[in-house]
Amino acid sequence: MNEAIEHRRLRAGIVGGGRGAFIGTVHRIASELDAEALVVAGALSSDPAVADESAKDWRLARSYHSYEDMARAEAAREDGIDFVIIATPNHLHVPVALAFLRAGIHVICDKPLAATMDEASKLVTELKVGDRLFALTHTYAGYPAIQEARARVRAGELGTLRKVHVEYLQDWLISPVEQSGQKQASWRVDPAKAGIGGALGDIGTHAHHLVEYVTGSRVESVCCDAAAFVAGRKLDDDANLLLRLRGRIKGTLVCSQIAAGEENELRLRVYGTKAGLDWRQQEPNTLILKAASGTAQTLRTGRSFQSPEAAHMTRVPAGHPEGYLEAFASIYRAFISDIRRRAQGQAIQHNYPGIQEGVRGLAFVAAAVASSARGSTWVEV
Amino acid sequence: MNEAIEHRRLRAGIVGGGRGAFIGTVHRIASELDAEALVVAGALSSDPAVADESAKDWRLARSYHSYEDMARAEAAREDGIDFVIIATPNHLHVPVALAFLRAGIHVICDKPLAATMDEASKLVTELKVGDRLFALTHTYAGYPAIQEARARVRAGELGTLRKVHVEYLQDWLISPVEQSGQKQASWRVDPAKAGIGGALGDIGTHAHHLVEYVTGSRVESVCCDAAAFVAGRKLDDDANLLLRLRGRIKGTLVCSQIAAGEENELRLRVYGTKAGLDWRQQEPNTLILKAASGTAQTLRTGRSFQSPEAAHMTRVPAGHPEGYLEAFASIYRAFISDIRRRAQGQAIQHNYPGIQEGVRGLAFVAAAVASSARGSTWVEV
Amino acid sequence: MNEAIEHRRLRAGIVGGGRGAFIGTVHRIASELDAEALVVAGALSSDPAVADESAKDWRLARSYHSYEDMARAEAAREDGIDFVIIATPNHLHVPVALAFLRAGIHVICDKPLAATMDEASKLVTELKVGDRLFALTHTYAGYPAIQEARARVRAGELGTLRKVHVEYLQDWLISPVEQSGQKQASWRVDPAKAGIGGALGDIGTHAHHLVEYVTGSRVESVCCDAAAFVAGRKLDDDANLLLRLRGRIKGTLVCSQIAAGEENELRLRVYGTKAGLDWRQQEPNTLILKAASGTAQTLRTGRSFQSPEAAHMTRVPAGHPEGYLEAFASIYRAFISDIRRRAQGQAIQHNYPGIQEGVRGLAFVAAAVASSARGSTWVEV
Amino acid sequence: MNEAIEHRRLRAGIVGGGRGAFIGTVHRIASELDAEALVVAGALSSDPAVADESAKDWRLARSYHSYEDMARAEAAREDGIDFVIIATPNHLHVPVALAFLRAGIHVICDKPLAATMDEASKLVTELKVGDRLFALTHTYAGYPAIQEARARVRAGELGTLRKVHVEYLQDWLISPVEQSGQKQASWRVDPAKAGIGGALGDIGTHAHHLVEYVTGSRVESVCCDAAAFVAGRKLDDDANLLLRLRGRIKGTLVCSQIAAGEENELRLRVYGTKAGLDWRQQEPNTLILKAASGTAQTLRTGRSFQSPEAAHMTRVPAGHPEGYLEAFASIYRAFISDIRRRAQGQAIQHNYPGIQEGVRGLAFVAAAVASSARGSTWVEV
Repeated sequence: MNEAIEHRRLRAGIVGGGRGAFIGTVHRIASELDAEALVVAGALSSDPAVADESAKDWRLARSYHSYEDMARAEAAREDGIDFVIIATPNHLHVPVALAFLRAGIHVICDKPLAATMDEASKLVTELKVGDRLFALTHTYAGYPAIQEARARVRAGELGTLRKVHVEYLQDWLISPVEQSGQKQASWRVDPAKAGIGGALGDIGTHAHHLVEYVTGSRVESVCCDAAAFVAGRKLDDDANLLLRLRGRIKGTLVCSQIAAGEENELRLRVYGTKAGLDWRQQEPNTLILKAASGTAQTLRTGRSFQSPEAAHMTRVPAGHPEGYLEAFASIYRAFISDIRRRAQGQAIQHNYPGIQEGVRGLAFVAAAVASSARGSTWVEV
Repeated sequence: MNEAIEHRRLRAGIVGGGRGAFIGTVHRIASELDAEALVVAGALSSDPAVADESAKDWRLARSYHSYEDMARAEAAREDGIDFVIIATPNHLHVPVALAFLRAGIHVICDKPLAATMDEASKLVTELKVGDRLFALTHTYAGYPAIQEARARVRAGELGTLRKVHVEYLQDWLISPVEQSGQKQASWRVDPAKAGIGGALGDIGTHAHHLVEYVTGSRVESVCCDAAAFVAGRKLDDDANLLLRLRGRIKGTLVCSQIAAGEENELRLRVYGTKAGLDWRQQEPNTLILKAASGTAQTLRTGRSFQSPEAAHMTRVPAGHPEGYLEAFASIYRAFISDIRRRAQGQAIQHNYPGIQEGVRGLAFVAAAVASSARGSTWVEV
Repeated sequence: MNEAIEHRRLRAGIVGGGRGAFIGTVHRIASELDAEALVVAGALSSDPAVADESAKDWRLARSYHSYEDMARAEAAREDGIDFVIIATPNHLHVPVALAFLRAGIHVICDKPLAATMDEASKLVTELKVGDRLFALTHTYAGYPAIQEARARVRAGELGTLRKVHVEYLQDWLISPVEQSGQKQASWRVDPAKAGIGGALGDIGTHAHHLVEYVTGSRVESVCCDAAAFVAGRKLDDDANLLLRLRGRIKGTLVCSQIAAGEENELRLRVYGTKAGLDWRQQEPNTLILKAASGTAQTLRTGRSFQSPEAAHMTRVPAGHPEGYLEAFASIYRAFISDIRRRAQGQAIQHNYPGIQEGVRGLAFVAAAVASSARGSTWVEV
Repeated sequence: MNEAIEHRRLRAGIVGGGRGAFIGTVHRIASELDAEALVVAGALSSDPAVADESAKDWRLARSYHSYEDMARAEAAREDGIDFVIIATPNHLHVPVALAFLRAGIHVICDKPLAATMDEASKLVTELKVGDRLFALTHTYAGYPAIQEARARVRAGELGTLRKVHVEYLQDWLISPVEQSGQKQASWRVDPAKAGIGGALGDIGTHAHHLVEYVTGSRVESVCCDAAAFVAGRKLDDDANLLLRLRGRIKGTLVCSQIAAGEENELRLRVYGTKAGLDWRQQEPNTLILKAASGTAQTLRTGRSFQSPEAAHMTRVPAGHPEGYLEAFASIYRAFISDIRRRAQGQAIQHNYPGIQEGVRGLAFVAAAVASSARGSTWVEV
């Protein structure tokens, strides 16, 4: 089978993400967008009827009612899936991942890595042996502008970095929607399913990843003031953090799911001795590069981005906006490229977030939660 | 075969669009994005080697070296394609379309409809009989914001319409790139392949369609000043037009492919007695609604759009930008939906541009070219 | 008196512009802003009570009830005014100007120059002799960004100019406010007071001036479609024009006072063979310079503007926005500078719009109105 | 003299602000803009020659070489100044203010109030008796949009406030310009002249004032991480703060003078249970009001602002941008209005920042500096 892997689309399976979950469709589209894979099997819901209906929606060849069955059955098939997509609530990430990895199937998993660091450790251990690949969908790394930003930082265009400000603001949890059964809200505010971080885990990890990804530095310590503004909520829905990064970089990270009027406002600014960078996810094809005491340049996808990494993630000519799904697809493309390489005995490239980024993210959440609990003292990540 | 059509992805073929042509990939992605179809066959280039290499890129099951062969062979197969995508230069649109339609295969075609009105007439005649469907990819109708704009106009939120300004500005033909063999440029500036309109045909038709689509009115006459700024160019690369639309609406249309610094600046503004609308394709998820003497509202995809039509074309939550490929995919989704309906004997809905919009576009180009030739007199469309 | 003119603020008088007229205050502030002049006398209204009340508002030393009296009296005083500001409706511009010029007093006048070309000719004749100065407040020339744009065009940074698009959109006349006694509206829609142009005269002349000022070229002919959308209105409240400028430049000019939701949207775009420029009056401190096929630069007042002309009109550090009043004041500063020069026997510099620009503006309106009347034929300006 | 105060412009004097200091001109223009005052006297520099030259630039009637002389002489004149403007470095604010207050002259002073809290106390004591007025030019309160924001918060349009984010970013101290004799830089980085705060004192106080002014709440405690990024600098040039405000509001404040590429980026965001507000000083005429889960409204000066306070500070029609000087002038207008009231025995209104806001600002700086020194612990303001 594998000898022909370069001549065919990979076969993908998906766990979770059925009707009512927006992220399932996102994974399906992203995995197929570049004609590199096709989703053929799924265990799309813990409710068998929903699972089957959802599989029909996508016209999947095979619908399973449990991920264990699916892992077993797909591993046994001649034409079984090459990789599995995990789009479940956080607490299931690790059990599902282990099931498929142990069945010899590559895994691409939604973030955060796990609900707890303990679980994450099991995954780390599992991945130390064998040749299965693991990717974590920190989507925003898939935007060409983020690739460009990273390349410019690396090339020294900003000089020595001094400051970073990242924010990730939403308002969809501004009222206690979890009490009226909103499915996506209910597990995200439940410590048993989400882990110890609320907004910190759900979107703070994205912001944290983005900062480290673009700066090439590491958040060494955080000083956090987290809050649950909505009464009765057990996890934070808002957090303000001071950051210190390796290399004497300072900054702030703000994440909130109760910021009235904000949709999905992820913004990253990085300042060095020579220039600053500014990017907003809601207008993702634009990257502003501001020279100290000088002129701001509006760099654009497909136009004034110069890095091969950004070009690689651009599918249409300048001025034809690419968005979230395309960014997501770029993560998939890099992951699938590695699956093909591995199947053909080539060295893998690992141009996508993986287990280490996942562990870093959990460590960030743990440090932030601890800092806030201790009255906003500096806590090492 | 057809009884099961609801349970499977449709099979698509594609003519043109191989390596070096950006629009082929766009069609492939757009047709597959919603898990409604899969491209399985192609005649991707007139050069057999390029055709086969391109087919391999996309891992197509079947690669043809001529569209005639493809039409014949696919019509004969039990598992032949359900529809064909035409992504060739303009002068081939009609011959290719006729070949497939006559083979009983539905057609979705890039714009403009044809290089000449004569050719277009053949297509009109062909489509008068039979049950084959025909769609024209005036992509911009696929943006949720355009659906929203149209719905708001229809609902009377702007009052009586008075003014419309549309512009479509690019700069990729600012120098004579066609002379150095740029493939996409060379056929677009060649009257034998492009037809009588240069910028007018390539992007003016998009602008014209958008105006009529959103206003629900018709451009009755145009007063045009077209130019070929680049020496030696036989077709216009820039045109300024005054517009008069049914219902005493006045306006302007500007299209240019030599507007230095512009990527793909398609902007539509509509003004009525109560409010105005403003949309820019380069930030497509935002629609501005400005009340007369009042407040501007920023309406956003997935958030403050109220029309079911816009909601239907939105795949991810607010703040996760959708772009050009998604808009394109929405045209495909509507077209495929009609193919399924027809196969199942249901009434079709025709929620996509088709043969009539194509003919209107050609008539617009003809009127504009004639007006300009006569020294900018009003010419009826 | 004049020997000491460099050591004192000039004394200014003002005709028109009393309570209820917004433009009077604008002139007062603008004339005084740079400590170069002080308004001391006025004939602020044809209604004596209003005139006196208005003079008290501004704490003027002398209030007159007729401009003729004022011209006579001020000319006779030892400490009479050095120049007069004309802020009346259009039809009074010339009579008032003549009265003061003949009394030996310099004149700065609001635009357009006159209600009719005949009147304007009298002024031209009057100014042919003597040493009195005349300025016309085409305010927008006073913005640093416009100075910068002009300087960049002159320096060849755009290459050979090809295209220009200017628009000036408002909505304050969207309904028949003149019928309910809105003072500023009533004279502007009255041909006896405003002249033959409505929106064309009031704001079209600004747009026309800006185009010629920045490009350094001249509008040679226009093809116009003007309309009075509001029933019963005798003058145009909306006009769309095709432009041809000297040097094979083409473009459009749109002016409207019924564009729902627009406040004072004056925007100028100029495109050459190398780059394009984009400026919006509502964010006046920003000028976008877009390289062909390249990067857009955001040039900013006090920061990345390089021309001495722009620097000269900038009063505060970058990031401290300057606006309309400051632009207006820059016209005054240049005019007053010339008054000082003349008083001291130096050559004047004429860095402000004057009689010629006024005549050009009237010729533009006349051509536009004629073109529209003839069914949108090209008419020379 | 005072009986006639309503019929004349007030007479102002100015200390500091001569050639080379940008803020002197700003005060001069702002004080005169509304025809309420005229600057007639000054002690513009400690260098007598510079003082006289600067006075000549502005055509002042009287130039002094020391502020003590000026206070004495003006107090003695029949036509002496009504108020004095203090535009010196911080350490002189209090001595100069005391000199004039003790001479019975009203004072309007640049911020921060003083270099040290001790000095500030003297001023507090001095102002406890007598009828002299004192204003502090926290300019940004003078923007109509800030008035509007404040009014909307008060009216409950945001619901209960939860979050506030304010940032004030510049880059003019990104390199050690003070070492090459840049006059404005050298005193600002000198603890003897500036006080204990660098960026915190210079711009952090503006940000702090704005937060308290708009929210109507108070910053109760801060957790600060301040830095001097430029080697050799004794005062902070960058600070990141977590904020806690009365009423369980949380937030961040960032101020920096080394943020590469930033001009004068002051931005305030406030979020409540119902809506959020967003304002940027660099586009000051626009205020965004974002409904939770809803639509963003773009509110505009002179157009969709509804509060009488905002209307009062608007001088020109919508779409004619007003900027920094106009905001500054509105602080002056309110202050002068109180001087007139006091002279006429009316109750004053105190619609401008004064001694209390000044003391709050110093307390904020002290708390921030202390927090940073203690390793970012919460310190009460």
